[in-house]
Amino acid sequence: MLRIGLLGCGRIGQVHARSATHLDGVSVAAVADAFPEAAQALAAKTGATVMDPDALITSDQVDAVVIGTPTDTHYDLIHKASAAGKAIFCEKPVDMSADRIRECITAVEAANVPFMTAFNRRFDPNFANVQSRIKNGEIGDVEIVTIQSRDPSPPPISYVKSSGGLFRDMMIHDLDMARFLLGEEPISVFAVGSSLVDPEIGKAGDIDTAAVTLTTASGKICQISNSRRATYGYDQRIEVHGSAGMLRAENMLENSVEVANEAGFRRAPAQHFFLERYEAAYAAELKAFADGVTQGTPITPGIVDGLKAQLLADAAALSLEEKRMFSIG
Amino acid sequence: MLRIGLLGCGRIGQVHARSATHLDGVSVAAVADAFPEAAQALAAKTGATVMDPDALITSDQVDAVVIGTPTDTHYDLIHKASAAGKAIFCEKPVDMSADRIRECITAVEAANVPFMTAFNRRFDPNFANVQSRIKNGEIGDVEIVTIQSRDPSPPPISYVKSSGGLFRDMMIHDLDMARFLLGEEPISVFAVGSSLVDPEIGKAGDIDTAAVTLTTASGKICQISNSRRATYGYDQRIEVHGSAGMLRAENMLENSVEVANEAGFRRAPAQHFFLERYEAAYAAELKAFADGVTQGTPITPGIVDGLKAQLLADAAALSLEEKRMFSIG
Amino acid sequence: MLRIGLLGCGRIGQVHARSATHLDGVSVAAVADAFPEAAQALAAKTGATVMDPDALITSDQVDAVVIGTPTDTHYDLIHKASAAGKAIFCEKPVDMSADRIRECITAVEAANVPFMTAFNRRFDPNFANVQSRIKNGEIGDVEIVTIQSRDPSPPPISYVKSSGGLFRDMMIHDLDMARFLLGEEPISVFAVGSSLVDPEIGKAGDIDTAAVTLTTASGKICQISNSRRATYGYDQRIEVHGSAGMLRAENMLENSVEVANEAGFRRAPAQHFFLERYEAAYAAELKAFADGVTQGTPITPGIVDGLKAQLLADAAALSLEEKRMFSIG
Amino acid sequence: MLRIGLLGCGRIGQVHARSATHLDGVSVAAVADAFPEAAQALAAKTGATVMDPDALITSDQVDAVVIGTPTDTHYDLIHKASAAGKAIFCEKPVDMSADRIRECITAVEAANVPFMTAFNRRFDPNFANVQSRIKNGEIGDVEIVTIQSRDPSPPPISYVKSSGGLFRDMMIHDLDMARFLLGEEPISVFAVGSSLVDPEIGKAGDIDTAAVTLTTASGKICQISNSRRATYGYDQRIEVHGSAGMLRAENMLENSVEVANEAGFRRAPAQHFFLERYEAAYAAELKAFADGVTQGTPITPGIVDGLKAQLLADAAALSLEEKRMFSIG
Repeated sequence: MLRIGLLGCGRIGQVHARSATHLDGVSVAAVADAFPEAAQALAAKTGATVMDPDALITSDQVDAVVIGTPTDTHYDLIHKASAAGKAIFCEKPVDMSADRIRECITAVEAANVPFMTAFNRRFDPNFANVQSRIKNGEIGDVEIVTIQSRDPSPPPISYVKSSGGLFRDMMIHDLDMARFLLGEEPISVFAVGSSLVDPEIGKAGDIDTAAVTLTTASGKICQISNSRRATYGYDQRIEVHGSAGMLRAENMLENSVEVANEAGFRRAPAQHFFLERYEAAYAAELKAFADGVTQGTPITPGIVDGLKAQLLADAAALSLEEKRMFSIG
Repeated sequence: MLRIGLLGCGRIGQVHARSATHLDGVSVAAVADAFPEAAQALAAKTGATVMDPDALITSDQVDAVVIGTPTDTHYDLIHKASAAGKAIFCEKPVDMSADRIRECITAVEAANVPFMTAFNRRFDPNFANVQSRIKNGEIGDVEIVTIQSRDPSPPPISYVKSSGGLFRDMMIHDLDMARFLLGEEPISVFAVGSSLVDPEIGKAGDIDTAAVTLTTASGKICQISNSRRATYGYDQRIEVHGSAGMLRAENMLENSVEVANEAGFRRAPAQHFFLERYEAAYAAELKAFADGVTQGTPITPGIVDGLKAQLLADAAALSLEEKRMFSIG
Repeated sequence: MLRIGLLGCGRIGQVHARSATHLDGVSVAAVADAFPEAAQALAAKTGATVMDPDALITSDQVDAVVIGTPTDTHYDLIHKASAAGKAIFCEKPVDMSADRIRECITAVEAANVPFMTAFNRRFDPNFANVQSRIKNGEIGDVEIVTIQSRDPSPPPISYVKSSGGLFRDMMIHDLDMARFLLGEEPISVFAVGSSLVDPEIGKAGDIDTAAVTLTTASGKICQISNSRRATYGYDQRIEVHGSAGMLRAENMLENSVEVANEAGFRRAPAQHFFLERYEAAYAAELKAFADGVTQGTPITPGIVDGLKAQLLADAAALSLEEKRMFSIG
Repeated sequence: MLRIGLLGCGRIGQVHARSATHLDGVSVAAVADAFPEAAQALAAKTGATVMDPDALITSDQVDAVVIGTPTDTHYDLIHKASAAGKAIFCEKPVDMSADRIRECITAVEAANVPFMTAFNRRFDPNFANVQSRIKNGEIGDVEIVTIQSRDPSPPPISYVKSSGGLFRDMMIHDLDMARFLLGEEPISVFAVGSSLVDPEIGKAGDIDTAAVTLTTASGKICQISNSRRATYGYDQRIEVHGSAGMLRAENMLENSVEVANEAGFRRAPAQHFFLERYEAAYAAELKAFADGVTQGTPITPGIVDGLKAQLLADAAALSLEEKRMFSIG
């Protein structure tokens, strides 16, 4: 039995709590949140004990912590949980600062505790299927990776202002996906971006429309595009072109129904947003973490993956600012 | 809170137990099964009390019974549950004999207890979407309904022998779906059938490949085809052609990935069988039952729907035997 | 060089003239039509000589006749062309009367002239691909054939009245397709039908919506449905379910463009009607005829295929009238 | 009647000859080729007169010239045809050198003769449909254009060596398409590229895999990717994401047939290469030219479009070489 202590009982914490209740051999033992009502509500649903974060982290009722609190709290919680010898599941980004992530890596490695950076999309059954088939050689050598990722609508401007910017908040998922699919580290980053969706985003110094090009040492290429708006739902597509074929994962639609009339053949919009679209991914992600911890097997993506995605996002931000390609590593 | 007593802890009972644990306001209070270990295993997962069937039916801890036992036990359980004033959710078919179903109707109506015949496919989000759009007039008047329903592989011959035959065991779902989509009662039934999949099925006096044509008083037409084998997964498609357009629900595939190579563009097989394909339908079905019982609203499909589907299946069997069209009603 | 004499310069005659001009080794030598202007117009485009039908048939400038005149003229033209020793390409139906078709068969066989009944759909590249893959064993033994065939809109009522009825005018194509795909002769026919599209069609004693079920001696099943209306274009789909898989040919759409917005993902309507949809089929059909004549190889579908489709249409009409299944052969 | 003189009777010249014979009001009056047999063969098919190029250009039997000769001959032919006052249809690229294209522009503008640069893809019915719907506002403001263009297999290395490189030979079509769809001139170009397909291409100083990013003054973004190899056929897709929706044109497949079995659902490969894929585009392109010349209406794409695409290709080549973004205009 893996007893989980949940730090943060907001939307994502609730997702992980629900996943945990469906997993054999996993229980939610304790929950903590800055808002007591949020913690109590989740405790009622799961049978967990409400604790304050420090008590939770050091509780002998807790084997692993799931960190779903605001990003600026991750650093402290990771250090404390490492010190307490707990396995750590941490929402992305690990931290806004690459240097601070490096300090977290030092702490985690010193304590030798299991760590997962929660890049949930790696666990989407479709994307995971693509990656495993690449590894099995089904399309030969990877040559071009194309990632299209568009949110249904822009977040509130208050969120944008504290988000770290599109590259670190939104594209970081795609940058991790690029590493996952390329099977090789990017060595160059080039970014362009605009504010086309919401002028307030531009005024806040951020962009809402962006494209990034990555290359690897062997010459593989990845093109990513992002938009903060897609009228037809949450647009999440990947495509990998290889020497022996092409693999692609299309959008998941709200249902399988098609209507035909004078206007043609119409299917449903894409599933609206990440909670629906990645429901199966969230469940598979926590299961992979729990399996890794209980079986003592390696956990991927780890904290170093969190750092590498952050470094790519940082390079993209610099590339946009300086209008030039950046070399990495 | 609706407290459910589960009669039958086999595969379908477990499905309903899982659905119940995910529903707010519903609990599994008691379970019963001819195999004590089956009952105990499900009790352990749900916190329910193991009881014998008679005790469960009359227990004041139970508001509604979910009947998932072998078909030949339904008759007695329905009579007892009616007498005990419990709401009843009953797996299809209600009974193999239309006359005995009529006796059940008498008992249920005399006791005035809520009753749902578990035609789960009506609650599939895709098929339900099709039906609600028909009702909303999106394709005008319904003219032709086409239902294709194929199992991935034939059942064991022992199952076939006690199944009541393809029309009553397998096509009954499609006959109910036809009624659901036509919005009008069939008045004629014509059936053809063969044993092409497994010669043992033919030797047992049954068929494994069949086609039925239904017509209604206003001239609407429904074509159904069934096979006990589909190499590409559980083939479950409906299509409705109307005066102003066409609606169709395509198969649900195992994933959204497509591979392209010299051989072309290939997507995954259809979801393998009913537990995967109708997972969402099972959950929505029990929710509809629970909502109906707790809110006192009408429940559909009811016991009369169970009878009408059975009468269509009986007519199809006779049509096949006598090689002629049967009029109904 | 195969020199063609074109009998009938209407819409279908013009299609064949265009096909002929694109074929190497084929020329349109002569044309005839009851309307001199129609003949002259087509002569101007093709360089052909305008002749009267009798002169055309006996002309030593003509090797083969293409009969695209009204159905009631076919009988005489076939007899004359047979007597003149010309190869014959004849639009379907050969005649409205099975007995008169039998007389044509006698004449054609006595003269031993090549004959093609123009069931153009057999030459559609998609349907031909399906049939050849069936023959190659790609889906094992054929078990269920499903044919959906719907016109975009009903023909003028004047056309309906002289058409011979839906089974002989419209479904005859699908009945021939059923024979083509089943690879085995139907032994039973059952039909239902209604007038749902246009009440005038019903008043004229015909139907506009129909479904037919065929079976073969080995137990294969075919379901056909027809409608005289499809708001989304000319609906032409076939599907063949076999012991080892399923083959289906979907509709051809007007273009490959998809638009996505709040309403979902929408593709174009189906190609509007037969001239667009079967453009490639018409060309391939005439080529197959010309190849057969010039190379002396067997021509399919022949005049006997024309008779067999007609007999199925006749049986369907009787089945509808007498509300019972008909045995054939 | 527009009388065409065809300069160059190779593969592309034959395509245009065939298109011309299908157009009302257009005839092929004269043909010229360095290989007399090629000219004679095409003359035999079209009824044209074989001439030498200079005679053809100045013939009073010729209203317009179609230039399908090797690229290095275009410059002279354009100057001569301009001087002779003939309308000019010229295969892309107009010339390998932007400066020499500018000289051609001077000649064409001085002579005031109609000119079309043969970017055939603008006339593909699918891509033209996308562009006209953009212009009609169907997806609001264009934000991101994605173009994927992959040849089925690399050309002979001899061709590669004289091709001007991937950007000028292959991607130039996509760069023109980008301008066509963006509706606004690119102001920056960034390119990456590798030799992954054929090491000989790398040795020859060229690339076979490439990605380019364009931006416009208003912040629109275009991503293009190219490969000289696609195992699944000629991969030609465009997608345009706008403020109110998304339009995309998928690949055209060899046929509409799908097979289903244990491996899933498989459709045909993409149409193999440009002659099949763009057959309709070639016909529409020549028709647009002929209509423009005979009606005196503006012709698009013109010679300036040829220059602008070339400048983008030049910038891409420089960007790859210098590993930096280039500003344009």
